[in-house]
Amino acid sequence: MSQMERYTVTLPSDLLKRFDNSIEGKGYTNRSEAIRDLMRDSLVEQEWAKKGEKVAATVTLVYNHHTPDLASRLTDLQHHHGHLVVAATHIHLDNDNCLEVAILRGKSEDVKHLAERMLSLRGIKHGKIAHTTEGKDLD
Amino acid sequence: MSQMERYTVTLPSDLLKRFDNSIEGKGYTNRSEAIRDLMRDSLVEQEWAKKGEKVAATVTLVYNHHTPDLASRLTDLQHHHGHLVVAATHIHLDNDNCLEVAILRGKSEDVKHLAERMLSLRGIKHGKIAHTTEGKDLD
Amino acid sequence: MSQMERYTVTLPSDLLKRFDNSIEGKGYTNRSEAIRDLMRDSLVEQEWAKKGEKVAATVTLVYNHHTPDLASRLTDLQHHHGHLVVAATHIHLDNDNCLEVAILRGKSEDVKHLAERMLSLRGIKHGKIAHTTEGKDLD
Amino acid sequence: MSQMERYTVTLPSDLLKRFDNSIEGKGYTNRSEAIRDLMRDSLVEQEWAKKGEKVAATVTLVYNHHTPDLASRLTDLQHHHGHLVVAATHIHLDNDNCLEVAILRGKSEDVKHLAERMLSLRGIKHGKIAHTTEGKDLD
Repeated sequence: MSQMERYTVTLPSDLLKRFDNSIEGKGYTNRSEAIRDLMRDSLVEQEWAKKGEKVAATVTLVYNHHTPDLASRLTDLQHHHGHLVVAATHIHLDNDNCLEVAILRGKSEDVKHLAERMLSLRGIKHGKIAHTTEGKDLD
Repeated sequence: MSQMERYTVTLPSDLLKRFDNSIEGKGYTNRSEAIRDLMRDSLVEQEWAKKGEKVAATVTLVYNHHTPDLASRLTDLQHHHGHLVVAATHIHLDNDNCLEVAILRGKSEDVKHLAERMLSLRGIKHGKIAHTTEGKDLD
Repeated sequence: MSQMERYTVTLPSDLLKRFDNSIEGKGYTNRSEAIRDLMRDSLVEQEWAKKGEKVAATVTLVYNHHTPDLASRLTDLQHHHGHLVVAATHIHLDNDNCLEVAILRGKSEDVKHLAERMLSLRGIKHGKIAHTTEGKDLD
Repeated sequence: MSQMERYTVTLPSDLLKRFDNSIEGKGYTNRSEAIRDLMRDSLVEQEWAKKGEKVAATVTLVYNHHTPDLASRLTDLQHHHGHLVVAATHIHLDNDNCLEVAILRGKSEDVKHLAERMLSLRGIKHGKIAHTTEGKDLD
């Protein structure tokens, strides 16, 4: 973990008051932590905008497991890009519907490409990509 | 304008360095200003999530002005909600295409409703709503 | 699965051509599937906008597992809201960093609240909530 | 305007019913129009992801016009990039606060850069960029 530094921000007191109310509602017990989170979030989006940057992501998929071939095509696709897929967790939502979440790592453009391929499989009802980070330099 | 307050944030030095690089690329000359902007942006989204809150917005529309009746239906709609529409600016993109941007103010749910109605008019090629604020308490 | 219906859309041929190019790049082999995905995605966002609606979500967290107490506070929080947490998967990104993804189900406002509490824990470097659906009526 | 084509989509009837309810609430009188809008919106985001692509945008800014030099720095910036700025409209929100919306056109990377510079000016309370299109090939 990198060294901590103390930095003084100049803030209008009304803004500070409103910000405090807002983060308290979200469960923050510490204003510095809330500010760090805003900073990190803006940095992660920038990592994703750069080609070649190493990133992490999760891909959430909801589908009807009765759709012919879907489960096998999904497994094939993940195996074919095995160097990008770290793990996948699967739950049963009801008799028909499953939710699967896969954790991906790799270059931003490769991860994006695989995630789009997963989302476009015939029979996927809903899919979402969550962009995140490998965590380095975000201490 | 509300009084300025000095507040000390504790930050890992690597995070601070990356944040400084990032905001410099965007043109910030002042780190406090960049932090205030992150705080304000998260507060504005919360204003919009509350019903009854007074907000401002702009609605950007691109359309083919040869679409029969579109211009008149757009004008009718704006006049019918005249208390919400402050101003509208219109430019000619090419022989066929126009861009119009309307500035709206009012309660969040009314502004959203009118903006959706504008976007759904037949012949609108593309529309975007930008959520912003009346600026009070964000000094 | 609900019955299939055939519906005729009237589309400008240039728009259709551009759309076809775009979805081919994403891996779609079937235009109807791409259109269904756009429709489902807009419906899922509306489910989330309604209080009381039953939804599903994944919460992706990246953190340094050396942060004192973080892992235990994260586990406590999930157990305390055990009726909302279906499963959680954890991977090691490097010596310091972990990625954890939790699958949540429940009423939209409860899931949002728990997800915000998880994201705001001290030491979480980055967090993302992916809104999805229980899949019913989206066949 | 490009020629219209009739294309048959195969859709589950439950999905169609939910979609119809949803678009009716937004003011659509025509299902084809709602589907075209979803298609166009996904295409516009792809234009913006490509460097060199000609795009249009609006930049919405809220600021306190008493902030020393802000109005003049904003005008300078727009004049300095005069080839990108088509028009700007300004309204008075209250004694202190203004809302200004500028219409920009040009290459995606140039428009993004100028918009970021405008948002980062000291004293801007809130800013939003709305990505849109020049409208060609979106008939």
